[in-house]
Amino acid sequence: MDILVPFSITDPKSRLQSILDTEERKRFAMVMLTDVCAQIVDAGYAPTILATEEIDVEVDTIIDERPLSEAVNAHVSDNTAVVMADLALVRSKDLQAIFEIDAEIVIAPGLGGGTNVLVIRHPDFSVDYHGTSYLDHLRMANKCGASVHTVDSFRLAIDIDEPTDLAEVLIHSDRAPAKLLQEFGITLSSENGRVTVTRSH
Amino acid sequence: MDILVPFSITDPKSRLQSILDTEERKRFAMVMLTDVCAQIVDAGYAPTILATEEIDVEVDTIIDERPLSEAVNAHVSDNTAVVMADLALVRSKDLQAIFEIDAEIVIAPGLGGGTNVLVIRHPDFSVDYHGTSYLDHLRMANKCGASVHTVDSFRLAIDIDEPTDLAEVLIHSDRAPAKLLQEFGITLSSENGRVTVTRSH
Repeated sequence: MDILVPFSITDPKSRLQSILDTEERKRFAMVMLTDVCAQIVDAGYAPTILATEEIDVEVDTIIDERPLSEAVNAHVSDNTAVVMADLALVRSKDLQAIFEIDAEIVIAPGLGGGTNVLVIRHPDFSVDYHGTSYLDHLRMANKCGASVHTVDSFRLAIDIDEPTDLAEVLIHSDRAPAKLLQEFGITLSSENGRVTVTRSH
Repeated sequence: MDILVPFSITDPKSRLQSILDTEERKRFAMVMLTDVCAQIVDAGYAPTILATEEIDVEVDTIIDERPLSEAVNAHVSDNTAVVMADLALVRSKDLQAIFEIDAEIVIAPGLGGGTNVLVIRHPDFSVDYHGTSYLDHLRMANKCGASVHTVDSFRLAIDIDEPTDLAEVLIHSDRAPAKLLQEFGITLSSENGRVTVTRSH
């Protein structure tokens, strides 16, 4: 099984700019990427990073400058999983479980209708990560006549894009991304409503 | 097994006021409550609503005017599940699965460190729903020496508090709460970043 981890170098995690500067966001994105790849290795699989340009990591990397969906579609084989690089809560056992599900299309939806993990075992299926990609991928699977399984997982649903997502990392993880947020001085804040984060320095 | 569904009548779903007026929020909260109770019944259990005042529903109701945590602690037996009334994505099979888990404390965390479903089978455990209640409940369970199981479920993690949560209802449900949002003219909107909602009338 091929495991692709797409990663864009240009202005990573831009929606965290209210709390992290450009260099910090780059560092945080790289730490999440490395951590996700380590979980894939622990699950017994070999990840391949699909990057927009050369990056300094100890993981096999394919360079493809095209937009996300185009690049992924160009590198899908007859049994491929696409795992987002910012799934800071994912554990190797969650990946093992989803990779072993017997369906032609397996989807772990993200918050807001995204697609966080996608297993593709049907020749006519193609990805489209724009907008409500979870619904688009369900429609595409039905159009192909492919069997579909949606995974109900909180850990796979949380991709790290917004400041509120950082709270989930601090609450549910003690791995490298959580440690880096602590180093940045980011802590939980529960003034109004749902818990989010604040920054001390 | 006793199933408590706490429900507060006063200004329900106040964080949805940017998109729903007071009467609409009351109606939406009641539809979610009725829907959650129906899922509990379909799972083979009898819900009891723990309400701050009399409400017009066909479900057994206990009236307790005290704050949430105090009221829940006063009504916990030796085998009680507390299910939040705004879990619009929960399905009967998700409830069956969590109620059957063999642990003294079973927790389904919500977004932002909340506690969406809590099964209590330990005499020394008490609830505290303020702040990051998921972490507080883990600590309390450890203090009691109780066995703990955390459930990894997206459907159980989504409680409906913020406008962005409405997007999850429209994406992942076709039950009564989703139909009411459609009646209100609420639709998905994907202009920037994660998909959220907009309102047409």
